Amino acid sequence: MRSTVGVVGWHRTLRKTLHSLSAPSSPAFLGPNLPDVWVPRDHTSPPTHFPESLQWANGHSNAVILEGKSIAKQIKVKVADEIRRMKSGIGKFPRLAVVLVGDRRDSHTFIQIKLKACDQVGIETVVAQLPQKCAESELLDVVSSFNDETDVHGIIVQLPLPQHLDEEKVINVLSPEKDVDGFHPLNMGNLAIRGRKPFFIPCAPRGCVELLLRHGVEIKGKRAVIIGRSKIAGLPTSLLLQRHHATVSMLHSYTKNPEQITSEADIVVADVGIPNIVRGNWLKKGAVVIDMGTNQVKDRRDHSFHVSGDVCFEEAVKVASAITPVPGGVGPVTISMLLSNILDSAKRSFEMI
Amino acid sequence: MRSTVGVVGWHRTLRKTLHSLSAPSSPAFLGPNLPDVWVPRDHTSPPTHFPESLQWANGHSNAVILEGKSIAKQIKVKVADEIRRMKSGIGKFPRLAVVLVGDRRDSHTFIQIKLKACDQVGIETVVAQLPQKCAESELLDVVSSFNDETDVHGIIVQLPLPQHLDEEKVINVLSPEKDVDGFHPLNMGNLAIRGRKPFFIPCAPRGCVELLLRHGVEIKGKRAVIIGRSKIAGLPTSLLLQRHHATVSMLHSYTKNPEQITSEADIVVADVGIPNIVRGNWLKKGAVVIDMGTNQVKDRRDHSFHVSGDVCFEEAVKVASAITPVPGGVGPVTISMLLSNILDSAKRSFEMI
Repeated sequence: MRSTVGVVGWHRTLRKTLHSLSAPSSPAFLGPNLPDVWVPRDHTSPPTHFPESLQWANGHSNAVILEGKSIAKQIKVKVADEIRRMKSGIGKFPRLAVVLVGDRRDSHTFIQIKLKACDQVGIETVVAQLPQKCAESELLDVVSSFNDETDVHGIIVQLPLPQHLDEEKVINVLSPEKDVDGFHPLNMGNLAIRGRKPFFIPCAPRGCVELLLRHGVEIKGKRAVIIGRSKIAGLPTSLLLQRHHATVSMLHSYTKNPEQITSEADIVVADVGIPNIVRGNWLKKGAVVIDMGTNQVKDRRDHSFHVSGDVCFEEAVKVASAITPVPGGVGPVTISMLLSNILDSAKRSFEMI
Repeated sequence: MRSTVGVVGWHRTLRKTLHSLSAPSSPAFLGPNLPDVWVPRDHTSPPTHFPESLQWANGHSNAVILEGKSIAKQIKVKVADEIRRMKSGIGKFPRLAVVLVGDRRDSHTFIQIKLKACDQVGIETVVAQLPQKCAESELLDVVSSFNDETDVHGIIVQLPLPQHLDEEKVINVLSPEKDVDGFHPLNMGNLAIRGRKPFFIPCAPRGCVELLLRHGVEIKGKRAVIIGRSKIAGLPTSLLLQRHHATVSMLHSYTKNPEQITSEADIVVADVGIPNIVRGNWLKKGAVVIDMGTNQVKDRRDHSFHVSGDVCFEEAVKVASAITPVPGGVGPVTISMLLSNILDSAKRSFEMI
């Protein structure tokens, strides 16, 4: 058989498809849509059970601290250097568009951190700030216009969006080629499928693997347990560690005995969102622990706030062979990975890679 | 900020994107691209180790046989009935396009099975058969033309393709809305991300979950082990079981001690491609076993061939609480799931769902 129809008509179909990138109805096959509700545990109590094999480490810490700040700095220096050479060589530079809706204080803080980091390495930024009550069509128009602008190489839509806006629709409209957060389903699919290359890998998983690789942690053949399955961290980290040939188990709030499964893992990644939920007695002696949690915790005495991870550091550091601190672990590396994604996108746009 | 650029220009970007749905270069971050080479084990030898806890079952079988043929028949009857009503109601019916390249005997056999099943339920089929040495552009044109045809609701490109053709490129060109095999990265991404709805779920995972649900096997909170990570079965099954809130571990050829991890699972899914590799002593007493293997095995005596699964059935049936036979287990249900996917696509096209 030979095709007699040209490709023009085909594009018509694709355009239609791209306005609605997924099926309208929910087949029961996809399973019940349950919220992930973890039960916080009292992290001030002593561990209820501390296996004998771990007693050796009590009071002593041999763990390597997987410090992220210096690695982040190294990556930033490299990105800044490449951008400098790009500017002097072809007179061009990367540009990031940020879409921010509403007044959430934490969102504004995160955006400020990202903008500052971009500024430090020579990435130009443009911010579209929309009111809390903006219409969905207005938001979609803004994203679409950034898709169109050839001198915008990356687009970030700061999440979460206000309730009345459909996050899925907005992410679907984002061009996968400018999706520097790596959240578009096309990029996620190409991350999941072995041999495929997404345009972008989400920044937190890239940060996690960067930390492991730079510290010489072998991933292939190791048992990795991911605790928590958020779209931005846990899920893509499980996919990326599988691409590195780890044997991955994905734990979530419906998992029975997460402690027991975690205690078998060589690499433990925590992405729960509850301070200190992962205790020292969850860990195998010598495990490598990556803590992706960044929880605001109120001090009982002076009511000040500090950032705490998902892992009880004081306990874990006595059992683990290596562990990331919070703050100063995965966080800074994640930000530098965003810069690296934006640079990669610009290079692709300028046909430099 | 308000957008001043229309959406027309945006489509330009998307069209470009769709010609190349993934990044051209391979970042080291994606991990080494290693082949999955399982070492076949001598399946005629007795198990080297049989835990005491399993001895009870020796010689006795209490397992429910998860028979697939009758379930497949029920689904087919339902699909055929819906198509009949569709024809009499609106005078329309589903249509499947099959693209077959080259002379592989097994591919021709598989296609014949699918075409026959379509015929039985009233799905019209059109086959585009291309020569072994066809040019890639020719194949892409054929797929594109089927994308364009509004009265084609599903497209199957029979895999594997001859070596000189880029499978990734061909699957990427396929409209996600007609991808009834569910292999397009956009559909895979929407299967991976919780809350999202792919247009299609791959047929083998749907078959697996259909068997579990129809036999009343609870999935939520259960430990599931998937042995093997093929794009068509193991990978999407791991994603689908996660959507059903199982705690999933993904085993592959680089996994150390697959026996030990498998022995902790409530649900075991085998997708290795090696006959009888999963032995009875790999299993926890009472596990539910889904065998996705369909291996051609030569009889030593009369040199005839028979189909064997990845699980040593005679041993597993004594330990498991339920197990699929091969043949007659997942296979027939998988075919009926394809028919169901094609029907769903037609209904969507006719705006009946």
